[in-house]
Amino acid sequence: MADTKSNQASRRTFLKSGLVMGSAAITTAAAGGAVLANGEDAILEKQDWNQYPGVGVDSAEYGEPSEFEEHVKRVNVPWLTADPISSVNFTPLHELDGIITPNGLCFERHHSGVAEVEPAEHRLMINGLVDKQMIFTMDDLLRFPRKNQINFLECAANSGMEWRGAQLNGCQYTHGMIHNVMYTGVPLKTLLEEAGLKDKAKWLLVEGADAAGMTRSLPIEKALDDCLVAWKMNGEALRPEQGYPLRLVVPGWEGNMWIKWFRRIEVGDQPWHHREETSKYTDLMANGKARRFTWEMDVKSVITNPSPQAPLKHKKGFTVLSGIAWSGRGKIDRVDVTLDGGRNWQQARIDGPSLDKSMHRFYYEFDWDGQPLLLQSRAIDSHGYVQPTKKALRAVRGTNSIYHNNAIQTWHVKQNGEIENVEVS
Amino acid sequence: MADTKSNQASRRTFLKSGLVMGSAAITTAAAGGAVLANGEDAILEKQDWNQYPGVGVDSAEYGEPSEFEEHVKRVNVPWLTADPISSVNFTPLHELDGIITPNGLCFERHHSGVAEVEPAEHRLMINGLVDKQMIFTMDDLLRFPRKNQINFLECAANSGMEWRGAQLNGCQYTHGMIHNVMYTGVPLKTLLEEAGLKDKAKWLLVEGADAAGMTRSLPIEKALDDCLVAWKMNGEALRPEQGYPLRLVVPGWEGNMWIKWFRRIEVGDQPWHHREETSKYTDLMANGKARRFTWEMDVKSVITNPSPQAPLKHKKGFTVLSGIAWSGRGKIDRVDVTLDGGRNWQQARIDGPSLDKSMHRFYYEFDWDGQPLLLQSRAIDSHGYVQPTKKALRAVRGTNSIYHNNAIQTWHVKQNGEIENVEVS
Repeated sequence: MADTKSNQASRRTFLKSGLVMGSAAITTAAAGGAVLANGEDAILEKQDWNQYPGVGVDSAEYGEPSEFEEHVKRVNVPWLTADPISSVNFTPLHELDGIITPNGLCFERHHSGVAEVEPAEHRLMINGLVDKQMIFTMDDLLRFPRKNQINFLECAANSGMEWRGAQLNGCQYTHGMIHNVMYTGVPLKTLLEEAGLKDKAKWLLVEGADAAGMTRSLPIEKALDDCLVAWKMNGEALRPEQGYPLRLVVPGWEGNMWIKWFRRIEVGDQPWHHREETSKYTDLMANGKARRFTWEMDVKSVITNPSPQAPLKHKKGFTVLSGIAWSGRGKIDRVDVTLDGGRNWQQARIDGPSLDKSMHRFYYEFDWDGQPLLLQSRAIDSHGYVQPTKKALRAVRGTNSIYHNNAIQTWHVKQNGEIENVEVS
Repeated sequence: MADTKSNQASRRTFLKSGLVMGSAAITTAAAGGAVLANGEDAILEKQDWNQYPGVGVDSAEYGEPSEFEEHVKRVNVPWLTADPISSVNFTPLHELDGIITPNGLCFERHHSGVAEVEPAEHRLMINGLVDKQMIFTMDDLLRFPRKNQINFLECAANSGMEWRGAQLNGCQYTHGMIHNVMYTGVPLKTLLEEAGLKDKAKWLLVEGADAAGMTRSLPIEKALDDCLVAWKMNGEALRPEQGYPLRLVVPGWEGNMWIKWFRRIEVGDQPWHHREETSKYTDLMANGKARRFTWEMDVKSVITNPSPQAPLKHKKGFTVLSGIAWSGRGKIDRVDVTLDGGRNWQQARIDGPSLDKSMHRFYYEFDWDGQPLLLQSRAIDSHGYVQPTKKALRAVRGTNSIYHNNAIQTWHVKQNGEIENVEVS
């Protein structure tokens, strides 16, 4: 039964009650919320949605976000690549919370567009140094024992523009080539054991069914460790742009190796040195030489709120700082944050499941004095690796690379709540 | 780089290679997969998607499932309720895996349709036995410390048609009023402490902003325990049909109490006995009396695959049985399955995160002899509660109720792989 009193209240009555919404009232409470003056009765405005029935159950449609959330979407930066079929869009990290990325907002990066693969016609082949060459249909794969893993996928080029300076104004652009979902599939190890590895088997060539024929060399140790051949993400079938109907999951390693539209495994005795591990996805050092096979994604974090796309709306007082942290080597043990560009650090609170090679969510609550801030976060993983400053990273690696930048990010919060991507020396 | 050999192979070559796809070949391998005859080279058919670029990156769209997954949707049973605004649709459990339900497939149940609430105009009020009556905007709530929890939400009427006999042919219908997502929000306890509870505060009246004015009485002990006032599900904003922009999360308790479009908390000293806790959502016993306040959802499980909507496609051999289990009291300790209607039980394998009041995924792999089966699963929770048989449950509760049926479900697998919802005595 609805509150009769509130249904009788008009907007005028509401305003006359002495209740002040927003920042003025918030300062009276420790953490927001308008408090009523002594003796006043709380009154809620009457709204259309309290009075008239909404739309009924629609069973024909796959559910979609609210019309008020239309601004929450992946965004493309057209000038980054030559053509939309080799382009990228970015996950709106500043609009998300928790550790699960919804499937409709997982960033995309393709090398020849989204392959539209018919699952009934899709095959996965294993050939090369195996006892039995095999070809699996999707139905075949469903008859192998399954595993579920929540893992982050980060593009090696995530934060790539930051190597040479603070360039893009928002964590969606600087860090948005990452997502974190639950995968379901069969361990790659199980399929390799089914085919039977020959003694000389040391490397796999993993290949996609898209027109780019995406291929990478994968060492046998990783293949037999924690890789999955997955067909579900967050409970449902993979999305087309994430490799439907089959993707290779390579936990903690650069996204380029997570072959989409996964069609073939060739077992060999040495790496293939294909395009995506020579001219691309190798890190060019200051001396012009390139690091080979930098597979693991190093410990990293970023503050998602507040951030340039999510400025502070209040003038001062209780504020929630939130962000994400991850490591390709394991779990996150600790995240520290600073409000003053690194002079003082405080430990943030990690909340929600802490899982291997998965995104972690952290929070830090503070009472903002309304003065400018220099926000940074610094993650430490379960192996003791500490996220470096940009300066420390450049001292070792130079600024020629666009890959594997895991440096500390800085946001400059101005007095008016607006925020900029900056560097501190 | 694509495999040149496979690109030259036509469908004719493929068929001539002696490779037999499907069930005939599968029996040669332990767990599916076509094995090539001695000396034959594995060849993959050339497909359009290997040769022509796909569509480029589209940044304007919120991502959607593949066109080949159009059959994966919630389904409505029109005759269940008088009007679509008070209707229900069901999660397609047989199409899902893992423990996360994607937001677009979370079942819906409304009492006055989907309220279309404008977040900027939405308010949450606390009044009654508090020191300070308070009204919060959505922005106010974002300034309180947050928590993340993965919890199942099950409608009290889930499996309700099964009380009087096996009636609906598929787990989507018998068990599909459940979903499991990660929520982000502020603990209800935090807001109550902000308002300040008076000594006599023992109950809350929690109220929705929809035209039905949904209200339930919630005991203070639960409110101060693990309830969340949530605005995110699986990382993004709540979906409209799940209470956008604000929902009460009441872990482990019946879905009707998880007030959507959450607008008001009245603090009192006794329960209100409103409609949804008297004429509805009370369990009618055999003697005509009703059980009052049966909030907790008891330990329960169901086999999602194979099941009536997901028959077996192979004739015999290696088979994966999969299902979900949950308990409103805690975690799931163990799931047993039987292939012969309860004569022999084997322990299933629980895989993926085991979290408090969350869905658990279990698997049981077996070598099917091709003969008829009577499949059942039986969950045991961390408090030692064992899921009962239908017979045992009816002996205590009769068959008048439509609520809180947590009995063991039976699927009859026929020799041709088709499956029916049956009862075993």
